Amino acid sequence: MASTFGKLLQISVFGQSHGAAIGVTMDGLPAGLPVDMDKLQAFLARRAPGQGAWATPRKEADAVEILSGLVDGVTCGAPLTAVIRNTNTRSGDYAGLHDCPRPGHADYPAEVKYKGAQDAAGGGHFSGRLTAPICIAGGICLQLLAREGVLLAAHLASVGSAADTPFDPLRPELDQVQKDFPVLSLEAGEAMRQEIAAAKAEGDSVGGVIECAAVGLPVGLGEPMFGGMENRIAQMVFGIPAVKGVEFGAGFGAARLRGSQNNDPYVVENSEIRAKTNHAGGILGGITNGMPLIFRAAFKPTPSIAKAQESVSLAAMESKNLIVHGRHDPCIAPRAVPVVEAAAAIAIYDALLEWKARA
Amino acid sequence: MASTFGKLLQISVFGQSHGAAIGVTMDGLPAGLPVDMDKLQAFLARRAPGQGAWATPRKEADAVEILSGLVDGVTCGAPLTAVIRNTNTRSGDYAGLHDCPRPGHADYPAEVKYKGAQDAAGGGHFSGRLTAPICIAGGICLQLLAREGVLLAAHLASVGSAADTPFDPLRPELDQVQKDFPVLSLEAGEAMRQEIAAAKAEGDSVGGVIECAAVGLPVGLGEPMFGGMENRIAQMVFGIPAVKGVEFGAGFGAARLRGSQNNDPYVVENSEIRAKTNHAGGILGGITNGMPLIFRAAFKPTPSIAKAQESVSLAAMESKNLIVHGRHDPCIAPRAVPVVEAAAAIAIYDALLEWKARA
Amino acid sequence: MASTFGKLLQISVFGQSHGAAIGVTMDGLPAGLPVDMDKLQAFLARRAPGQGAWATPRKEADAVEILSGLVDGVTCGAPLTAVIRNTNTRSGDYAGLHDCPRPGHADYPAEVKYKGAQDAAGGGHFSGRLTAPICIAGGICLQLLAREGVLLAAHLASVGSAADTPFDPLRPELDQVQKDFPVLSLEAGEAMRQEIAAAKAEGDSVGGVIECAAVGLPVGLGEPMFGGMENRIAQMVFGIPAVKGVEFGAGFGAARLRGSQNNDPYVVENSEIRAKTNHAGGILGGITNGMPLIFRAAFKPTPSIAKAQESVSLAAMESKNLIVHGRHDPCIAPRAVPVVEAAAAIAIYDALLEWKARA
Amino acid sequence: MASTFGKLLQISVFGQSHGAAIGVTMDGLPAGLPVDMDKLQAFLARRAPGQGAWATPRKEADAVEILSGLVDGVTCGAPLTAVIRNTNTRSGDYAGLHDCPRPGHADYPAEVKYKGAQDAAGGGHFSGRLTAPICIAGGICLQLLAREGVLLAAHLASVGSAADTPFDPLRPELDQVQKDFPVLSLEAGEAMRQEIAAAKAEGDSVGGVIECAAVGLPVGLGEPMFGGMENRIAQMVFGIPAVKGVEFGAGFGAARLRGSQNNDPYVVENSEIRAKTNHAGGILGGITNGMPLIFRAAFKPTPSIAKAQESVSLAAMESKNLIVHGRHDPCIAPRAVPVVEAAAAIAIYDALLEWKARA
Repeated sequence: MASTFGKLLQISVFGQSHGAAIGVTMDGLPAGLPVDMDKLQAFLARRAPGQGAWATPRKEADAVEILSGLVDGVTCGAPLTAVIRNTNTRSGDYAGLHDCPRPGHADYPAEVKYKGAQDAAGGGHFSGRLTAPICIAGGICLQLLAREGVLLAAHLASVGSAADTPFDPLRPELDQVQKDFPVLSLEAGEAMRQEIAAAKAEGDSVGGVIECAAVGLPVGLGEPMFGGMENRIAQMVFGIPAVKGVEFGAGFGAARLRGSQNNDPYVVENSEIRAKTNHAGGILGGITNGMPLIFRAAFKPTPSIAKAQESVSLAAMESKNLIVHGRHDPCIAPRAVPVVEAAAAIAIYDALLEWKARA
Repeated sequence: MASTFGKLLQISVFGQSHGAAIGVTMDGLPAGLPVDMDKLQAFLARRAPGQGAWATPRKEADAVEILSGLVDGVTCGAPLTAVIRNTNTRSGDYAGLHDCPRPGHADYPAEVKYKGAQDAAGGGHFSGRLTAPICIAGGICLQLLAREGVLLAAHLASVGSAADTPFDPLRPELDQVQKDFPVLSLEAGEAMRQEIAAAKAEGDSVGGVIECAAVGLPVGLGEPMFGGMENRIAQMVFGIPAVKGVEFGAGFGAARLRGSQNNDPYVVENSEIRAKTNHAGGILGGITNGMPLIFRAAFKPTPSIAKAQESVSLAAMESKNLIVHGRHDPCIAPRAVPVVEAAAAIAIYDALLEWKARA
Repeated sequence: MASTFGKLLQISVFGQSHGAAIGVTMDGLPAGLPVDMDKLQAFLARRAPGQGAWATPRKEADAVEILSGLVDGVTCGAPLTAVIRNTNTRSGDYAGLHDCPRPGHADYPAEVKYKGAQDAAGGGHFSGRLTAPICIAGGICLQLLAREGVLLAAHLASVGSAADTPFDPLRPELDQVQKDFPVLSLEAGEAMRQEIAAAKAEGDSVGGVIECAAVGLPVGLGEPMFGGMENRIAQMVFGIPAVKGVEFGAGFGAARLRGSQNNDPYVVENSEIRAKTNHAGGILGGITNGMPLIFRAAFKPTPSIAKAQESVSLAAMESKNLIVHGRHDPCIAPRAVPVVEAAAAIAIYDALLEWKARA
Repeated sequence: MASTFGKLLQISVFGQSHGAAIGVTMDGLPAGLPVDMDKLQAFLARRAPGQGAWATPRKEADAVEILSGLVDGVTCGAPLTAVIRNTNTRSGDYAGLHDCPRPGHADYPAEVKYKGAQDAAGGGHFSGRLTAPICIAGGICLQLLAREGVLLAAHLASVGSAADTPFDPLRPELDQVQKDFPVLSLEAGEAMRQEIAAAKAEGDSVGGVIECAAVGLPVGLGEPMFGGMENRIAQMVFGIPAVKGVEFGAGFGAARLRGSQNNDPYVVENSEIRAKTNHAGGILGGITNGMPLIFRAAFKPTPSIAKAQESVSLAAMESKNLIVHGRHDPCIAPRAVPVVEAAAAIAIYDALLEWKARA
């Protein structure tokens, strides 16, 4: 397994969806930094289910318990471990999943990889529930980054064919993301909700894209080649279940541009070097250039759908019709918005610590 | 710096464009495996410049010298280090680059990060020339993967607005990629060459997308969360200069699909589990599912263009017009095709070694 | 912090002595392997306090709770996290330790390193209590190693000036280590207990040496230079509080020998290559040679003693007499015997997994 | 293989004794720091052979060539790679070593591990010659540490039964180590030379112990548990061929002491916290306490001796008498003194960078 990420801040995520608990250890936090637990819990609430018609009605308490690393709410230098108890554990019968893998899920490769011993209940370690520990670690990193003047926010760039206004790449409107449904444009939000409702009505699901921006980064974060900001953020963000693509700045669109269009000219503004455009997404050669860091992550549609699907019986080695029961998000993207912020915050904070080492 | 990649096969890339030499160390190769040096040199020739109107006329010998790790052409278990001498070193005057950064290049963030001490000549460690060591390491991994029944190939998916036929995601036509210009469709190749020629005629450049496929992978490669195949390949591929996006299978397109469209139904074929479609790109939960592994990487247009560009003088802190001299590829993507194969091969071979450890 | 160890099996230890819980995450265990929890609990009981006159009378329950990674007692491939609740938390007043550091403890460097924010209660993350998570991880590794035919045991080589019979380096008597007091010679054990009792009677403490042996290792474990068995075991064993020296085979004694004495001649025995002596401790060039792997670790005397000691007030920057209260082991070595076994087992199992990757 | 060390400064050593070249890559050096190449070459000369009756008369040029990472003698932020050409390559016939392993060498485990494909010539990657790249990396780290006020020196603590005066643990006399033979006491040096001459006269060899001290370290270097200074230095120093033991401060001697003897009382001296004694060797809980960091490494006698030795033919699986030809150091310890300094400097500089990240 490799549920561990980072160099100076090492994140280790553990737990299965229906095991005793899920959690995360953060090894490498500087000492003496306050963590606001209410703020953290509020951040986690943004990914919690049961928030609207566009999400699963299932309830999760998701109360964070800190086992170590904080004394009186302040980091003490020791690894910080936080857990969330699973209240709804192994209630169902998951033997079926070992035999008949759900299309689009990790069931089949996990069955082979783990020789039939994997925890199939609720998706085990592959469950979207494991994004809660990412949010704990990322929520703490967001607080620490804010102390350094770095702010992050994400919004739904699209759901199906409904698209939000993109962030202004020069001055992303981080504080204008709506609270109840994370978009910039109310109209776009309405169109997205209709896409989700339409998919749900058909027992189907739909994908989406999340855009994330960070401002206040110093020039010089990230290391060249394999330790660049793009490499780190991509390694982290692809750890979120359902992500199938990551792009920075103009991204895939840059492949259709001319150099004269894509290059960001430099200007002096208020005695500071700035770029007039930001097709680079704030990263050149893997290193931050002081402009807003902007990236997008593509989420596939939730694989668990109510419609009948073709699968196979691994025991019988023959075709089998599969009906997936249970309540599932018709679109995972809205709840994934804080997860993308969290993932980016972890990667950026780790790079910030490394940057300080050689500053 | 973090020019190091991998867990069981650790790749360490070194060198600057106009330094004494560039090279790579591969630490962790199993012993007793033959390396065909002619084949490796032929692989490297695919990324060499001077191959056609669409590339820079500059010549590079790129003769690989093995310093360690091979005895009589066979891996001996010790780290394998290979170097390529730079014959064209520090000939020009690069003092200007320290003062007037080229838009779209790493010049400006590198100047700040390295306190003015970075090697600006020819792009230094950020030069596209550093993809040659990636090709050495990757070319060796391609040979070792072939021994395990794993084959890889890449082609130009698009240049500007000209698009090639995509790989058949169920049976990618690896052996049908054209030798002289890496496309599947001759017509598409012609259109791409025209795009490149048009950009060049205007002193401009153009971007492109490369699609890569691997077949023959066992089910179960990759580790969940941050050690998945997507995470590893993305971390590696974003190490290639100019890459701004990476997507797997349906990628960003999956975000526009319904679950019922995107899920890949399972069937039994010749007593094997297969998926009827391959929107997953061969990866579920970060783990290979036995289907072809398919991904695309977006390359921005070459930032070095002949057109005048707006930049600044860092010393004077005022605007300055910049003319970039020298011969540059009007499109980097054609020469980057073997680099993408190499990068993927390194990431896959490292994952294969890890898989064997727990098999 | 760097409470993380290993390459293919990554161990992450967390917790403070008087925090909510201590624990460990093991990331990288192969799937499908049974873990005997009773056996694990029995192993942990060997390091538990309150076992005799030579140990502290303090009681600790040390009941292991598995949060993840096991399904029905079998590894499922996901990270295994286990915790032990601290029942005796922050009861005392530890403010004094922030001002007046205990000689021989980490108090003073931790106070400076963590800017006064470290958890001083009971030694925090530096407490000997953190060896319990090492024993959880190591106890599991011991079970997995036994399935591969690898057996380990340790004994007290000395306490103060009282010395046990050393292991036979060719055939270490692993099963002859006494259960109640871990020595080979009952007489030596009696002499050690008297050393400990004498120190205790004076409100003092005494140090000791632990010898550990492993048999059944294949030839070829370990990687050269910095990944050798000596490097890995030393990196791990120095993680046990109070260890100040580690030596393999003849160790420091080899420095006094001639080459003709220290070299281990090879012979053929029952169609196997064997060494006639084992000054190498089973390791040559960092790699196992098929002979028993033998090492020793030196433990300093418990720094917490009842005698008055000279310290300083950090606030007043002046001398201060310190009396350390509480019940402490007059000799940590007896209880550290299973910890050394555990530490070695972790390092060896990690190396075994790596060996399989390239076998 | 695992010839890679470090976290923020990653050292990758490559080469075989009789291959084309040996060398090292240092990834992670801060930019803008001057490296004095004459000083580096002088440092390397201290480990070069042919310096006296106590060393092999073989000559090695050991001229360092910098391939990357320096521009005009200043670190540029890119990985620094340095190589030394092997002038004396594969001249002999080493087929014999594949069949008849030398006792005390890595020959036999390497033969098995690398399936007969290892480079046996001159010891291959296991040769003491590979300490030259460690000296390159360490020599550079020594220069960088000196800029931070950290000074290191080592001396021969003993050869066979002849012992030097130890360093004063409170104020180690770093500048009093003799230039021509690295001891503090001229008499001790004479006795050591006699030990070596006596061993040589008999076609034998002898072991030794090296003591190393560092002063000027800030309080707080090192991370707890597995990232402590003891763990890091031990992991590095055991990478030097022939090292069989490492101890810090009182080391194994501490195991014979009482706590009241071993604990180092604190005092205030010139408004600074100091310890009155230094049994801890400057490290508590893995973290520097501001006192001199002191450790010793035990070197076994050179395994290559002129005397006939018992070995086996691996092909015939029968006993075989072995005569090792060639010129070998009768004692490796004198030439290993700068290597120990180098190894310690690498580990300490890496820890210093990490410390800055969270300072």
